[in-house]
Amino acid sequence: MKNFEFKNPTKIIFGEGQISKMANEIPKEANILLLYGGGSIKKNGIYAQVKTALKDYTIEEFGGIPTNPEFAVLEKALQVIKTKNITFLLAVGGGSVIDGTKFLSSAALYKGEDPWAILQNKIPTQKGMPFGTVLTLPATGSEMNSGAVITRAETKQKLTMGGPGLFPVFSILDPNVVSSIPERQIANGLADAFTHVLEQYMTYPVGALLQDRIAESIFQTLIEIAPTILKDQSDYKTASNFMWCCTMALNGLIQKGVPTDWAIHMMGHELTALYGIDHARTLAILTGSHYTYNIETKKEKLAQYAERVWGVTEGTIDEKAAVGIAKTVGFFHSIGIKTKLSEYTKDFNGTATEIAKRLKDRGMTAIGEHGKLTPVDVEKIVTMAY
Amino acid sequence: MKNFEFKNPTKIIFGEGQISKMANEIPKEANILLLYGGGSIKKNGIYAQVKTALKDYTIEEFGGIPTNPEFAVLEKALQVIKTKNITFLLAVGGGSVIDGTKFLSSAALYKGEDPWAILQNKIPTQKGMPFGTVLTLPATGSEMNSGAVITRAETKQKLTMGGPGLFPVFSILDPNVVSSIPERQIANGLADAFTHVLEQYMTYPVGALLQDRIAESIFQTLIEIAPTILKDQSDYKTASNFMWCCTMALNGLIQKGVPTDWAIHMMGHELTALYGIDHARTLAILTGSHYTYNIETKKEKLAQYAERVWGVTEGTIDEKAAVGIAKTVGFFHSIGIKTKLSEYTKDFNGTATEIAKRLKDRGMTAIGEHGKLTPVDVEKIVTMAY
Repeated sequence: MKNFEFKNPTKIIFGEGQISKMANEIPKEANILLLYGGGSIKKNGIYAQVKTALKDYTIEEFGGIPTNPEFAVLEKALQVIKTKNITFLLAVGGGSVIDGTKFLSSAALYKGEDPWAILQNKIPTQKGMPFGTVLTLPATGSEMNSGAVITRAETKQKLTMGGPGLFPVFSILDPNVVSSIPERQIANGLADAFTHVLEQYMTYPVGALLQDRIAESIFQTLIEIAPTILKDQSDYKTASNFMWCCTMALNGLIQKGVPTDWAIHMMGHELTALYGIDHARTLAILTGSHYTYNIETKKEKLAQYAERVWGVTEGTIDEKAAVGIAKTVGFFHSIGIKTKLSEYTKDFNGTATEIAKRLKDRGMTAIGEHGKLTPVDVEKIVTMAY
Repeated sequence: MKNFEFKNPTKIIFGEGQISKMANEIPKEANILLLYGGGSIKKNGIYAQVKTALKDYTIEEFGGIPTNPEFAVLEKALQVIKTKNITFLLAVGGGSVIDGTKFLSSAALYKGEDPWAILQNKIPTQKGMPFGTVLTLPATGSEMNSGAVITRAETKQKLTMGGPGLFPVFSILDPNVVSSIPERQIANGLADAFTHVLEQYMTYPVGALLQDRIAESIFQTLIEIAPTILKDQSDYKTASNFMWCCTMALNGLIQKGVPTDWAIHMMGHELTALYGIDHARTLAILTGSHYTYNIETKKEKLAQYAERVWGVTEGTIDEKAAVGIAKTVGFFHSIGIKTKLSEYTKDFNGTATEIAKRLKDRGMTAIGEHGKLTPVDVEKIVTMAY
């Protein structure tokens, strides 16, 4: 096991009817900016619940934060924070709204001139404006971690940020929200959480026995619930496991003491930036080819995963590893997610070269858990995903 | 899954050589009281590492906190805190030293006259004096939770306390400490952690699929490492898994959203108070009879555990449940821990009646996950454990 540090101070408030508890978590004198996305919270009743819970507070609102939270939109929200003397941010939405709120938390206290520098120059946020979240879309785990991904359409960039100052003060997870999520987003959430676990698990063994087993627990639970939640989103028991799996998949715990990969995400972000393909689907596109290309260095973990998660008992390590990859691709198909780039766009020629170039331009010339995947490797992996 | 709230702000610093990082975590102007137990830290090198790490601080010391931290001893430490204007506590030890430090953290800021009232009247600690820990004995999980158990020899009492103000600010876990722990304590740590997971898992199903699997992950890892760590305590890989399992077994995570039992602990505390039997061994004494007595209400989880943790594939639910109990008792035996009270004391006549009376006197007349075990049940369970 590798040395590690772990601290996650976010308070999780989980279960039905919990939105009403929000006022206990926000200072009485706070000036709140309520942030949300396309307005689905006004249809599914969440907006009304939040307003009722916060009836004694001064609240400004900023809606319209898009999927892949856009810098140009967030700049406008930042103006509201400054002109209205906002002291507390409340994200009501999924990963995009929460990530956008994290950028605002950081930018609100940033001393420099252009807050894009936080992303461009990878400045870690030690202290941000305090914020809470009400999660409406289980997927990214942003509700219990300190990372965010922000998009800038102007330059087709998708950059990451983070730091110990960006944990939500609290996050409210009411599984009832799952019932009104479009099926496409449910499948995305399943794929996103599954891939988060893969990125932290599918590397090489370092004797972190407990972390491996906890990661496998999340895989097993996602596989168990996937057919049920896609069939009946209003099944509260299944929705609650779906929600808790998504949070646990990326709250920092399973990555502690182990090597992590994240190459799938680095390449996938570029597919979203270039073609607007849903984040989770870009991960599904790249997973099979990434693991097949790197099977030699990943085969021990792939075989362990095939054995423990998929119950594969026959075959050599190499054979089990191959089955592990096939089972993963099969899982994506089982939830209705296509795994080839050509199934999403006809315009894929040159994509691999372009993504390799973009990562190279950004200095990402040695990625993966061994730091050995070059732009040449990236080009081959993306080509295999056509 | 039941509704839950989860917040654990303790910073874990895990790995070899990490004690040197301590000064980053303590305010420069702190007046530190360094608390420890019987002095083993002076033999195994931990004391020297701590002193070196804190060479720029003002430090007072208080050694001699006994196993089952004794109120009379802690009262003396409290005097040191008050007369020396201590502002930060540092526990260097196992669960007893850390629990004692938690009592002091609470008592140092307590406004009342007699700090025993914190225990007697079950006063939750909202804010304590800040403290960190250097764990020298993996077992209790106290390094990453907000609970403590304090003993008062005068009245043969062992009472619990807790509250959100009692999480350590940081805990340093260096698996190298395991190499110098007496074998008896290693076995106790394994049994203690195993039973902590049992108390949070072996109840009845509520559809908390992920929590169940994470709990099973800890069982599986403890079972996997037990023979190795008992054979070679200096095996760093195994020691690190042992240490992280003990922490994860009682840091609050696996108890969220599920019913918990804790009857074994309630009865076990009395066996320690009456006979001075090691805490972990009292749990091993009571587990088999508690589960056998309550097999009807616990059989679904017992059978699931037998299947997933012990690989039992044959038999009815009742048969699998019985095998689950036998496997658990067998696990205790495999690590050299006896499971009958008569193997620890010849003076056991009347113990069951006495424990039932003690729990009754303290108002604990409806214990277990269903709140249905009365003093009559307790008497029968303890009798079965003779």
